[in-house]
Amino acid sequence: MPTTHENLKNAFAGESQAFMKYTTFAEKAEKEGFRNAAKLFRTTAQAERIHAQGHMAADDAIGSTADNLVTAIGGETYEHNEMYPPMYEQAVAEGHKAKRMFGYAVEAEKVHAALYQKALEAVKAGNDITESDIWLCPVCGHIELGAPPEHCPICNVKASVYVQIA
Amino acid sequence: MPTTHENLKNAFAGESQAFMKYTTFAEKAEKEGFRNAAKLFRTTAQAERIHAQGHMAADDAIGSTADNLVTAIGGETYEHNEMYPPMYEQAVAEGHKAKRMFGYAVEAEKVHAALYQKALEAVKAGNDITESDIWLCPVCGHIELGAPPEHCPICNVKASVYVQIA
Ligand SMILES: [Fe+2]
Ligand SMILES: [Fe+2]
Ligand SMILES: [Fe+2]
Ligand SMILES: [Fe+2]
Ligand SMILES: [Fe+2]
Ligand SMILES: [Fe+2]
Repeated sequence: MPTTHENLKNAFAGESQAFMKYTTFAEKAEKEGFRNAAKLFRTTAQAERIHAQGHMAADDAIGSTADNLVTAIGGETYEHNEMYPPMYEQAVAEGHKAKRMFGYAVEAEKVHAALYQKALEAVKAGNDITESDIWLCPVCGHIELGAPPEHCPICNVKASVYVQIA
Repeated sequence: MPTTHENLKNAFAGESQAFMKYTTFAEKAEKEGFRNAAKLFRTTAQAERIHAQGHMAADDAIGSTADNLVTAIGGETYEHNEMYPPMYEQAVAEGHKAKRMFGYAVEAEKVHAALYQKALEAVKAGNDITESDIWLCPVCGHIELGAPPEHCPICNVKASVYVQIA
């Protein structure tokens, strides 16, 4: 019998994936003209968010922002150093279309780790990061502070494609 | 060496959990007054959503809305029949505070499965569900179509606590 700590990790994994699937299925239902079914998917996604965040809280997995940045840097570093490189190589070997997003992700996670590191240094000194303009490439997940680059250094789209998240 | 299909499942799990953690960490950063760090967490969460949805697409895991409802019903049924009951029992045995959300979730997933089943019957007949008012209990994840119940049948909060998701 797994411990409750182990159960919380597994339930968090399940709820997080349910959230993401339902969010994606909502977009598809909207495209197919099922507006109320899309709303049901979005609403249920939020129910799963409540469950996932409740499990995190019960597992004491929400720390101070400094703690949370350390956790985030650990995840990003694992992804770009260990997780994604062999996945990318395998997709290339199979000629699988997954290689596109694996290739984008391995580069984007490196950028995320560096930005979180910058934020950690500020927060440890009691400060916020100074840049309030934070730009996202919606094709590959690249992020740039201040102003978007002329072309995305990962996927090469133009600056005008970048968006900010409210 | 895992196949790309297996890698896509694992990468989707990782990205979905990163999305949920960063969303939660953003709320915490906001509470601690780090508004720009909060925005960095929210923006990075969206980058992980892009990766997760790209992996779903590369794995051909986004079907028609009817297919997606079948997938969703399968997940909800697994959670309320198999996954959550032993987790709840173990939390009770440990006297762990996790039992609260495990108890809410096991009941809420049953409701989600039934609502998705209702939506599936409509969609299979070429129709949308008729109710556009869809109410969420933000404490336990209960969902009700049409109008909120006087008290949540799972966690007992009043109707006025229920919310709708845009
Ligand atoms: Fe759930
Ligand atoms: Fe990342
Ligand atoms: Fe890009
Ligand atoms: Fe990612
Ligand atoms: Fe559910
Ligand atoms: Fe409730």
